[in-house]
Parts: sequence; structure tokens; C-alpha cells
Amino acid sequence: MTFPTIDETHDPALDSWVVGANGHSQFPVQNLPYGLFTHRGGRRRLGVAIGDHILDLAALEQHLPVGRDALGGDSVVHLLSQPAPGRAELRKALSRLLCDAGFRESVEPHLIPAGECQMHLPMAIGDYTDFYVGIHHATNIGKLFRPDNPLLPNYKYVPIGYHGRASSIRPSGVPVRRPRGQRKAADAAAPTFGPSARLDYELELGVWIGKGNALGDAVSIGDAADHIAGFCLLNDWSARDLQAWEYVPLGPFLAKNFHSTISAWVVTSEAMAPFRMAQPPRPTGDPRPLDYLWDEQDQAQGALSIQLEAFVSSAGMRSAGMQPHRLSRGDASAMYWTAQQIVTHHASNGCNLMPGDLLGTGTLSGPTPDSFGSLMELSQGGKQAVILPTGEERRFIEDGDEILMRATAVADGRISIGFGECRAIVEPAA
Amino acid sequence: MTFPTIDETHDPALDSWVVGANGHSQFPVQNLPYGLFTHRGGRRRLGVAIGDHILDLAALEQHLPVGRDALGGDSVVHLLSQPAPGRAELRKALSRLLCDAGFRESVEPHLIPAGECQMHLPMAIGDYTDFYVGIHHATNIGKLFRPDNPLLPNYKYVPIGYHGRASSIRPSGVPVRRPRGQRKAADAAAPTFGPSARLDYELELGVWIGKGNALGDAVSIGDAADHIAGFCLLNDWSARDLQAWEYVPLGPFLAKNFHSTISAWVVTSEAMAPFRMAQPPRPTGDPRPLDYLWDEQDQAQGALSIQLEAFVSSAGMRSAGMQPHRLSRGDASAMYWTAQQIVTHHASNGCNLMPGDLLGTGTLSGPTPDSFGSLMELSQGGKQAVILPTGEERRFIEDGDEILMRATAVADGRISIGFGECRAIVEPAA
Repeated sequence: MTFPTIDETHDPALDSWVVGANGHSQFPVQNLPYGLFTHRGGRRRLGVAIGDHILDLAALEQHLPVGRDALGGDSVVHLLSQPAPGRAELRKALSRLLCDAGFRESVEPHLIPAGECQMHLPMAIGDYTDFYVGIHHATNIGKLFRPDNPLLPNYKYVPIGYHGRASSIRPSGVPVRRPRGQRKAADAAAPTFGPSARLDYELELGVWIGKGNALGDAVSIGDAADHIAGFCLLNDWSARDLQAWEYVPLGPFLAKNFHSTISAWVVTSEAMAPFRMAQPPRPTGDPRPLDYLWDEQDQAQGALSIQLEAFVSSAGMRSAGMQPHRLSRGDASAMYWTAQQIVTHHASNGCNLMPGDLLGTGTLSGPTPDSFGSLMELSQGGKQAVILPTGEERRFIEDGDEILMRATAVADGRISIGFGECRAIVEPAA
Repeated sequence: MTFPTIDETHDPALDSWVVGANGHSQFPVQNLPYGLFTHRGGRRRLGVAIGDHILDLAALEQHLPVGRDALGGDSVVHLLSQPAPGRAELRKALSRLLCDAGFRESVEPHLIPAGECQMHLPMAIGDYTDFYVGIHHATNIGKLFRPDNPLLPNYKYVPIGYHGRASSIRPSGVPVRRPRGQRKAADAAAPTFGPSARLDYELELGVWIGKGNALGDAVSIGDAADHIAGFCLLNDWSARDLQAWEYVPLGPFLAKNFHSTISAWVVTSEAMAPFRMAQPPRPTGDPRPLDYLWDEQDQAQGALSIQLEAFVSSAGMRSAGMQPHRLSRGDASAMYWTAQQIVTHHASNGCNLMPGDLLGTGTLSGPTPDSFGSLMELSQGGKQAVILPTGEERRFIEDGDEILMRATAVADGRISIGFGECRAIVEPAA
């Protein structure tokens, strides 16, 4: 297993000459995430977030070790599907441009205030797969159906996943329309069709694939890190009433494919180098992963030190000028399988992953209620209301509610880096 | 509901001047399917199958009511995502070119022997969804798990479906590598990892989406036919041992995403006009579909008269010079829901379908064993062998076996039309 290494671009002492890029920014010069933006309605361009600005890459060809085609395109996939040395070299060049005052005069004209820009999906998503590796979430949801036996026998052997819908993934900020669908009350003889009454969010991480594998080939666990380009936040919007009625025997479908929201910046694997940690040991009695999923270095370094938060802001809260209300705070150590293990499992049958594929982790709830990553868990299946600062009650999401998510990579002695916003407001059903 | 109408292009008396295009060809001039081909290693070009030839569309711009961009591209999606009148006009123009002897001199140079060509996927597949609308298959599979209660309560209300993998769909002829994966014997304490020992095929129809819908919008059942561009054959290769272990609670994943084979020609909705039929009445006692799925004209005309066959050819049979052995013969009346109903259901929550999306019907088994569309059903879960002409036994697919599928649209007094080949040979695991 070869993870990106810590180098001079991660030095906590590095300062950028860009005003506002230091201190408490989500995007200090130690981050350098890639994204796709438009400025005041212009064409789509590749950018790097730095403080409150976006560095427009299109005009920086002479300063960067990347061809004009890649920099002038409308997808960051060409930057992220490079071999690892190329990705690292690009990061170093960007770091120098933004730290060395000697570049300020030539680079500053290419900084655009982020507030004047609109973000887009960073790349075309070929296939989207959602996993279920948050073990506390799987246990909480399982308990609602099977109190004595929440986790099924395959859970601790198989990184459980299913294919999701790529076409309905949208960047942060795009409103979500409440889905309609079939729901059947437990005591009803037949289902009815109408707006979902149990709309929920799910707090997840997204894993971007940079390097693919050929159909029929596997990705060994020792090679998996090299296939991962970066990470984002993911809100896997879920209609629990549709889900309960439709999901047997083939899994979630219309309950989840109406919209998924991601944060628009790709926080690279390179940026995450200082925030790797050991995979938490499995509880006593849990089986060892099968050999194809087992790698000592993955266990020692393959987990991610990321804090995760979810907030809600109701229309009433916003008109009262209130800040969003935090629903939960947890961290990525809830992953029972590492990102590398889910990549290796996904390709273990010869399934070809492609640059630009997105893998969701599944909901990352922590072990205690203050870290539960969905309302289904927070409200115990709708039985207990969450109370908002206005006194409003929430068992599930109401029209006009905005759900906001935040992720921060943290490590002792390191500058923390953020993932940018992942937010969307819910609009009434059509 | 507006289905394409029968017009002069469907006249059984129409003859083409192309030698070999009449009589028993799968591709008489009443068919005119679109595909993407290369000739002796050249670039990808759009073509129409006619008899044993492919009509190269790139050079026919002056004869066809389609722009140069669409004809010169490397995807048939631009032809199929036109509004219905444009699609019908193109079909009429092609019919005239291939029937009117006055065009022969200028058109004949653009006919290429199909045997010299390689076929490709006709368009980039954005999202692939597989349904489960073959009610006999669902019943047969259900019986293996729940003998007294094979169909779950939602089956007769919900067109059950799940998202599949788009990246691993390949055209007819591309070999399939046997997948590896986790399997757990019923009496074993733990799973093991290795080549699937229960590899199977599934005989399905594919439905191509031509016209999409915006995210958040639905497609009414009355409009659904207009979103369907055409049809193909689909072999949903399945590893039954992987499937049994992984599929709860989120559905099939690695058991099915290692490879799917489709026939490369898009048989258009227009070509299918003479082969529409009434949806078979639901058995007494079955519920009426909910209103959003119900349309009188869909019930009267929305089903398809298509015969379906599956064959196997083992390495031993081929070296003995034997013809493929027919495993089953059934028809598309096994669909409990029409193609229009699955489109409307898919978009009913606001999920955006896109031009080039592919929907599978699920396995189309008939009610009797000679029409079962998978080995899982033919061998009763592996308990009873199928005997090949060589005397070889098959419970599941062995390395070197080729699975071939054939579909023929048939109607009284009409020329039957074929879907072209859907075949692939199974290679040993890596």
C-alpha cells in the first residue's frame, strides 16, 4: 500500500500570500482542492480553492506541469487520473505559486472571489456506488427491524454496497424536490402514491476514483490507495416511507435516486496525507477480513481523521435570523472498512472502476445519539422529535428545511482543512 | 399514450434492392436498426443493418433529414433523442433509399459486408437500471427461498428494480471473465473467496431511453412511450453463489456487475409498431395498478410480441461441430409491467432519465420449464442437470461455454424482424 506522503506542501508553517487563506479558512494552502466553476455566467473552468478565492487554472499553463488540454477542459478528471507522481508534482507547483511572493504579481490576477462564482460537479460521474460501512448506522437501522439481531451475518465479511443513480447527483446548493412515490401504512391493505412523508438525509463521505481498472481485472488491496483521487461530502437523501415498501428483495431504488448532494471541491488524497490514521481495531470476536481485503499498512494508515457535522435550518429559523442547528457531530472512524477496502472489494470480481466514479461510504453515525447521521436514527424511526431552537419539532425533514454538512480533517500539530459546503434546501413535491 | 404508428415503412410487401435483405434475414427493410461499427479497424461510424450488410450513414448526409454532426458522430443517441416526428422521417428516408432502385447507384457504395465489421455499444450508457418484471421468473426464484409465498407483497404494486453497473456493459461477442468473490456454504462457519461456482445467464430485453426528463419532473404514463427509443437483448450474467451471500439487505451488487452483454443493434420503437399487443390481463384477484401507472391505451397496445430464445454451446459441442443447444424459448408476454410502466415508475419520484440510459426488464421466463430464462430455474437451483447433446451436464455455466440469445418480433401477416446476436463465451477466472 502506497499512500501519498507528507512533504513540504503540508508544512503547518506554510503561509500563502493570498489574503484570507490562513487562520481559520477551510481552504488554507495545505488543502488545495480542485473544482469546476463558472464566474458570472462564463464558461466552466478548473479552479483551486484558496481562502475565499478560486485560483483559475486555465491561464496558468506556463506555471504548472500539466498540458493545456487538461487545464482548459471542463472536468478535473484529467488532473486526478494522472499517475501519483504527476498529482504530487502539480500540488507542489500550486503550493509554490501561492506561497512564494515572487509569483504574486503574475498569479494574483487569476484569483477570483469565490462569492462571485458558481460551483459545478467537478467531473462527469460514470457510475455511483453507495456502501454501508458505517457500522453504528447499520446497527441502528438494523435494530429498528431486528432488535435482537441488528447486523446480518455477512456484514463483518462483506463491505456491503449497492449501485446508486449517477444522473441525479448535484453539487451543493441545488434545491431538492421532495419525491413522490408509493408508501404503504402497516395497517393499510394497499399502498398509495403521493409525496414522501418521511424524508431524511444521510451524512456520508464520497470517495472519488482517479485511476480505473480494466474489465476483468481486480485491484489488489496493496494497490487500492493509488486508485483514489480524493474525497467529498455526500448527502444521500432518502425517502424512508418509499424505502420501506420498495426495498425487498432488490434494495433501495426510488427511495434514494431522486437527488444526492455532494460538496463540489475534491479534497485530494495528497491533501489528506497528514490526516491518515490507523483503522480502529475490530471489536473482540469479530472475524479478520478475508485475505483479499487485508493489508497491514492499510490497517496502520488507511483510516481518515475527519470530523463530520450535520445541521438543519428551518424556514422559521432563517426568518428569525438564527444560525443552523447542529443535529450531530461524529467522525469517520465509524467506517468498519477503509476506503481502500471498498475499492478492492468493488473490483474484486473484475468490475471495472473508471476515473470519475464516485463511491459513498454509507451513513457515518457515531456510537452515541449526538453523533447519529440521519433523522431516522435521531428520531428513532420517527418516534421521538428533535426540537429546533424555534421550538419546532422534527421527526423527518419538512419543506423549506435546509440540511448543511461540514467535514474537517484534523490532526495534532497540523493545520485543519475543510471540505467546503454541502447544503441543499428541500422544496415541496411537484 | 402515443405509440409510433404503422406506415408504409412497415408494409410486408416492401422489398429492398439490397441482395440478401429479404426472405429470412433478421434485418429486412422493415427493421432498420441503428448501430455503431468499425470496418477493418477504421473509426467508429453510424450504421443501419440491412440483410447481411451495414449501411454507412456518414456519407449519406444529402439523402437524410439529419445534420452532419449527428451522422458523423460516434453515438446513435443523436438520432434516437430526436422528437418522434424526426425519428419517423429518418426511418422513411432510409426505407426509400433502400427500396427505391433509383437510389441504388448512389447508395450501394456505402453498403459494407457486416462480416467485415465490428460492432460497438451504440451509445454511451449513463445509467443502467435492471427491473424484475418477469413474473414467472420472480415466482420461480421466490419459490427457491419461500416455497409457500414466492412473491413478496409489493410485487404486484411496484415495478421492482435496482440500479446496475453501466461501465461493465459490453456488446455481443466480448468474452466474459468468470468473476471471483465471497461465497459461503450453508454449513460453513465463514465465507471463502474464489471463482464463482454458480455462474448463470439471464435472458432479458433492454429498453433504450431516447428522451430524458428534467430532475424533479415525472414522466406521465401517457407520455412514457415517447421516451423510449428502442430495444435490445440483454444477458444479465449472474454469479448465484456471490448473490446469495451478499444481497441482503441492499440487493445484488458484485453478483451482477462484472459484465452484462447486449445485442449491439437498437431495434427502434418505430420498427416495433406492428408488433405491439395488448398487455395480458392480470390474473383474477391481482390488484389494479395505481393510477400513475394506469393508461387504457398502454394496456391495449403497450406490450410487445417478441419471441425469446437462449442457447448454449460448450467447447465440446463446438469441437464436435454441433449447433448450439436451445435451453429455452419464451416470449415477452411474461412482463407483468409494460416498458412504459417501468419508465413512468422510474421517473415517478423525479429521478431524471437521460438519453442513452438502458433499462433491463429482468429475466423473461415463461410459465413452463421449456421457457425458463436462466439456469437457476432450469436446474432448480442446481439440483437437476441440463443434458447437452454431447452428454455433458450443466447445472451452471462452465468455462468455455458460450451463451447465445435470439429475439424475433412476430405478428400475423407481418415480416418478422430480429434483434441480432447477443452472445458471449465464458473465460476462466483470473
